[in-house]
Amino acid sequence: MAGTDTQNLATTDGPVIILIDPQMPENIGACARAMLNCGLTQLRLVRPRDGWPHEKAEANSAGALALMPPVQVFETLGDAAADLTTLYATTARPRDLVKTVFTADSAMAEANTRTQAGEKTGILFGGERAGLTTEDIARADAIISIPLNAGFASLNLGQAVLLVAYEWRKLQVTTPSKTLPTGKSEKATAQLRDDLYARLEDELAARGFFRTPEMRPSVVRNIVTMFNRADLTDQEVQTLHGIISILTTPRTK
Amino acid sequence: MAGTDTQNLATTDGPVIILIDPQMPENIGACARAMLNCGLTQLRLVRPRDGWPHEKAEANSAGALALMPPVQVFETLGDAAADLTTLYATTARPRDLVKTVFTADSAMAEANTRTQAGEKTGILFGGERAGLTTEDIARADAIISIPLNAGFASLNLGQAVLLVAYEWRKLQVTTPSKTLPTGKSEKATAQLRDDLYARLEDELAARGFFRTPEMRPSVVRNIVTMFNRADLTDQEVQTLHGIISILTTPRTK
Repeated sequence: MAGTDTQNLATTDGPVIILIDPQMPENIGACARAMLNCGLTQLRLVRPRDGWPHEKAEANSAGALALMPPVQVFETLGDAAADLTTLYATTARPRDLVKTVFTADSAMAEANTRTQAGEKTGILFGGERAGLTTEDIARADAIISIPLNAGFASLNLGQAVLLVAYEWRKLQVTTPSKTLPTGKSEKATAQLRDDLYARLEDELAARGFFRTPEMRPSVVRNIVTMFNRADLTDQEVQTLHGIISILTTPRTK
Repeated sequence: MAGTDTQNLATTDGPVIILIDPQMPENIGACARAMLNCGLTQLRLVRPRDGWPHEKAEANSAGALALMPPVQVFETLGDAAADLTTLYATTARPRDLVKTVFTADSAMAEANTRTQAGEKTGILFGGERAGLTTEDIARADAIISIPLNAGFASLNLGQAVLLVAYEWRKLQVTTPSKTLPTGKSEKATAQLRDDLYARLEDELAARGFFRTPEMRPSVVRNIVTMFNRADLTDQEVQTLHGIISILTTPRTK
């Protein structure tokens, strides 16, 4: 499986995912895959329609179910949540309940704080057809509502689990938001770049590129600005030197 | 379709999604659904394996394809991207290219800034089997790499599109991260709550709840603290008054 490397399997002791009345085993598999993508591994099912285990779930999990602890199956939400201290219910439809509504990221920030304090949290997802009942939602401590396109908000089960698990994942990693990997080379020093620009200016001037002496400084500034915007590496500065060398040589054919 | 309400269909003039060599039409449908969930509507395909249009894509889009402008099909990435000013390539595998790598959220923040400045951006996704070629990636202005579980990072196409589109969506809405919808009632004033607590304390004292006068203040403080943590509404204060009234009445059966 491309992208699977069990040596690097990184899981976190995060929220338990509880699917209530899930219908299609394929969707349960997709949920497992999305969970493991994001380092979550504890999946519980309440009354899965087609029973458990199911080969279509295995197939659609892309190997995730085999790498996770066994999925647990329960008859009631009460049983499935018995050992959990805080429950979040995911729903797109507001109900007539006075209950805190979180976005997915703020809910996971809260769940993360609770987990670090030793709590064990759970996230409830309803079945494909009807979602969570109002009773299930009443039982939860808070609601997670993902602010999607109000005119087209219906997510499938695997995608709903993915978005919440992804917000959990983002809190577990400290990936810089923007990097420039330079491999074996390094960002070119100002000196290296200045030498390149001086040589280029010289070669241009020797061929009459600058129409008047007055315009020369501003044209050079613009060329330097263009190249500096490219965040050149030392390797790339050498490549540009090579390009100048070859362009200043007569064509051989 | 539950969750579909074309009166409220909110779309944004955001990035174009370009799928290169997509294989399964079902996955193209899932991408369209994920896009419209997040308010994106411009989908372009480069060499879709099974041709276009395709009924399996329609079926798996949950109605999204019918609500979006027609999908455009191209023979090359060059053609598909001809009118775009900035391209982002999504990939989990680092290549030997000195190119900026963004997380999905920071890439969409940049794309949002560019869009507001009048640019037209595009996001490239590779086919199911091999992802983007290094050549496709070289052509892009920057890379998007989603920091998933390194040991299990393989996302399906629809899920990859969903995560990037979701980060776009988050920038388009100003949903508060935490709200407490109180419906027809309102958060109870301090006065309303103080009256309730005073009545409760009185009823408790009249029945010998406080073992010693010394402990009374701290027990009352703890009870008040517990109720205040619940963010009571005026309706709920009335319910609690009703509970006190009935509990102080003898059982009738």
